[in-house]
Amino acid sequence: MTDEDFMRLALNEARAAFEEGEIPVGAVVVNKGRVIARAHNQTEALHDVTAHAEMLAITSAANLLGGKYLTDCTLYVTVEPCTMCAGALGWAQVARVVYGACDPKRGYTCYAPHALHPKASTTSGILEKECTTLMQEFFRLRR
Amino acid sequence: MTDEDFMRLALNEARAAFEEGEIPVGAVVVNKGRVIARAHNQTEALHDVTAHAEMLAITSAANLLGGKYLTDCTLYVTVEPCTMCAGALGWAQVARVVYGACDPKRGYTCYAPHALHPKASTTSGILEKECTTLMQEFFRLRR
Repeated sequence: MTDEDFMRLALNEARAAFEEGEIPVGAVVVNKGRVIARAHNQTEALHDVTAHAEMLAITSAANLLGGKYLTDCTLYVTVEPCTMCAGALGWAQVARVVYGACDPKRGYTCYAPHALHPKASTTSGILEKECTTLMQEFFRLRR
Repeated sequence: MTDEDFMRLALNEARAAFEEGEIPVGAVVVNKGRVIARAHNQTEALHDVTAHAEMLAITSAANLLGGKYLTDCTLYVTVEPCTMCAGALGWAQVARVVYGACDPKRGYTCYAPHALHPKASTTSGILEKECTTLMQEFFRLRR
């Protein structure tokens, strides 16, 4: 499985969000080559601003592993994490973060560039076009 | 009820966390003079780094109000919010944030100074000594 393969699973989650009328962001957590959590944005359904895809995926992955640290995990997410999610990724000590589309308006790289764990690595731009197109289509329909 | 009165309720939550072996941070959400949510840090019990007092309080308050925005609310928390929690407070559009102790190591004012809603007001130093002492005592016992 490549980064593109895992990002495609995150995109499937994002599409599920889209279908539910949620801002289409999806995430998966991978541990030793295995997907251990999948989630999509559910802020509308749960009336809860904290229910971003990454937050739900972190909680789910920690539940599965039985501990709160995700030191051997990679999180794939279709859109650059926001400040809140980057802070959570930092607390969870997620080793690697891979995202598709950049988010210059809300992304952590602008607003909290040191939020991830100091040893975390990042990769961006994986399936960027698909991730961006899904977001643009969502907001176009709501305009 | 004054800021000190509400902070004392947050301190009660922090003391409950202390008793449970959790880092002693407590929070309450006040809406129109009424306490609508109380929470304390539960990261150990839930094995979940996202279970900070503020996050749980935001989710609880939104549940009670039936909507995800807390635009008419004040959040009182015993310790300065971290990047994650400040991001969540920003998304929830919490109007006012009041905290006791500063957290120069993890506090949002150092790492994500623009995370709160642009119109949010903040007050710090309310019952600072009690809030700080509780944290120091917790870590002293664990050394």
